[in-house]
Amino acid sequence: MDGIRTYGGGEDFARRIEGGRFLFSLVMSYTRTAQIPGITVAGSNPELLKFTPPADAEFIWYGRCRCIDSIPMTPDGKPTPALLTRAALRSSGIPFVAVDAGGMVKPRMPHIHTGLEPGGDISREAAMSEGMVGRAIEYGRAAGMMLARMADCLVIGESIPGGTTTAQAVMRGLGMDARSSSSMPDNPVSVKERAVGLALSRLHTGEIIPVLSQLADPVIPFISGMLLGAPGDTPVLLAGGTQMAAVLAAARALGYGGKNAAIGTTRYILDDSTANLLDIAGAPVIAVDPGLGGSRYDGLRAYARGFAKEGAGGGGSMIAAMLGGGAPDAARMLRLVEEEYSRAVALGSAA
Amino acid sequence: MDGIRTYGGGEDFARRIEGGRFLFSLVMSYTRTAQIPGITVAGSNPELLKFTPPADAEFIWYGRCRCIDSIPMTPDGKPTPALLTRAALRSSGIPFVAVDAGGMVKPRMPHIHTGLEPGGDISREAAMSEGMVGRAIEYGRAAGMMLARMADCLVIGESIPGGTTTAQAVMRGLGMDARSSSSMPDNPVSVKERAVGLALSRLHTGEIIPVLSQLADPVIPFISGMLLGAPGDTPVLLAGGTQMAAVLAAARALGYGGKNAAIGTTRYILDDSTANLLDIAGAPVIAVDPGLGGSRYDGLRAYARGFAKEGAGGGGSMIAAMLGGGAPDAARMLRLVEEEYSRAVALGSAA
Repeated sequence: MDGIRTYGGGEDFARRIEGGRFLFSLVMSYTRTAQIPGITVAGSNPELLKFTPPADAEFIWYGRCRCIDSIPMTPDGKPTPALLTRAALRSSGIPFVAVDAGGMVKPRMPHIHTGLEPGGDISREAAMSEGMVGRAIEYGRAAGMMLARMADCLVIGESIPGGTTTAQAVMRGLGMDARSSSSMPDNPVSVKERAVGLALSRLHTGEIIPVLSQLADPVIPFISGMLLGAPGDTPVLLAGGTQMAAVLAAARALGYGGKNAAIGTTRYILDDSTANLLDIAGAPVIAVDPGLGGSRYDGLRAYARGFAKEGAGGGGSMIAAMLGGGAPDAARMLRLVEEEYSRAVALGSAA
Repeated sequence: MDGIRTYGGGEDFARRIEGGRFLFSLVMSYTRTAQIPGITVAGSNPELLKFTPPADAEFIWYGRCRCIDSIPMTPDGKPTPALLTRAALRSSGIPFVAVDAGGMVKPRMPHIHTGLEPGGDISREAAMSEGMVGRAIEYGRAAGMMLARMADCLVIGESIPGGTTTAQAVMRGLGMDARSSSSMPDNPVSVKERAVGLALSRLHTGEIIPVLSQLADPVIPFISGMLLGAPGDTPVLLAGGTQMAAVLAAARALGYGGKNAAIGTTRYILDDSTANLLDIAGAPVIAVDPGLGGSRYDGLRAYARGFAKEGAGGGGSMIAAMLGGGAPDAARMLRLVEEEYSRAVALGSAA
């Protein structure tokens, strides 16, 4: 397990899933919280934010986006972590399915439909009605049961701009001292704290359904439901950073007591001194070092400096590829990521 | 392989998939051809026809329908073949995924979305535009590639009222002497022939895209695309009757030359003297005897007398359950089907 570090029982979990058959699912969604100025870097401009999740899914599947001309990338060439996901899945042959759980824009490819709606801006309104929370959990349960049956280990990633802020709000609403990571090297702590504070001021209970209704985004109840729906003997690798800690906290509050989940992420999340994933996970954590600091491309080296860090299940999919067998070593994986990057940049320039 | 008979290389195919990991997918769709009076028994009245495919999917998944109060059943208690599918999948633990490829009504459960539209009544209009044919093939390719990666053998069933008529039209349009089976014991040959004749009168070429545009329903190009998209080394079991012969004919006309497909169905289709599946399949055929003639319920014995016969992938899913291992013997499977039937009838009466 070269390049992989484990925490809190992560080694046992890794041994359990090693050599198994994986399925990677990407849950796409949207929260209007992402429109708060300065809160996220996902998408190079506010108008494009809503295209980021479907563009991530399309990029992973087709190698190019269809709902936008280029790939989600900042103007100075820092790309979406979906690059890591695509390289990992391609290198290992792990199957992929995209799940729409409340996106504003649907991807132009076959994907699982749930009928959920985008979430509200939690700094000024409820994220969703309590009925919608129930629906998200129920549909998540069905999707989790369905997808977990197709594999020995179900990997669940997310793509939702602004998701670290709603994750932080949910954990605070549940009484946890959580500091979420960010897609930006300088975590916009004060912007997030302000949004979270405004959201918490509307909350007068610690009960889980009102907490999710006021503070969450559709991804959190949906993936919590997936965890509740997956058979207890099927390992679930939650591919993400602090957002997945919020999912686990919500699932536990909803009655999840299983031992079949772990968080799979990149070491860049653990390197983030403004976040505290290991303290709040309450589950094994497995972290991969994608070695991007040694890349010949500055856009990829930026990851090692704290840009993006994680997203679109990048870290978890690399872990799955490495544990599933057939994946190349770290050096070869880096070359695959670089190939995807140079191809994506070329596509972007041509567009 | 007690209870299973094979034709045209079906035994080799069965040996190849025996003991493997299966995934069962149900492709739901709609053609306005189903509204021609007397053409189909699927759905107990014309208003309910459009609910049959999503109700089949919901019944397979939840054990009850959600978009309608009861299960698809004729007024005298003859139920949808989705009963067989549910019993087979439950007995074997085979995972299930529903795919919407142009349905009028969407199932109230997570399902794969494609954005396709219902097909036209081929007796008076084109089934779909040529652009839509292309889209159906393209989305089918993506779905086939996606789903085939998740299993050792991809099983594809269909649920589309009126589908045997469009299947017959497509095969005639391709110059084949095809007689399709029917969901009714007295195959409404003259009603179908009239609709097919009217449709063929608009066709002035044997080229595949115009043939599909004028004569098909969305299922035929979509499943053809799935077959083209699935990796050539992954076996695909087409779970259906004469409709799957039309899918194979269309796929071959679109360039499919693989050896990885077989048709899996019930013996009731082969017993139908008005149809000629073995002559037209052009691929191995595997047929299961569900033994419903020996059931204590008349609604199920009706199958052995030629009612319904096949649909919702019933035959293919029983074959998969029997070959996949872990499935019970024929007598136990019959009891499971009977349990589902009596439960479904009770649900229907309660509604």
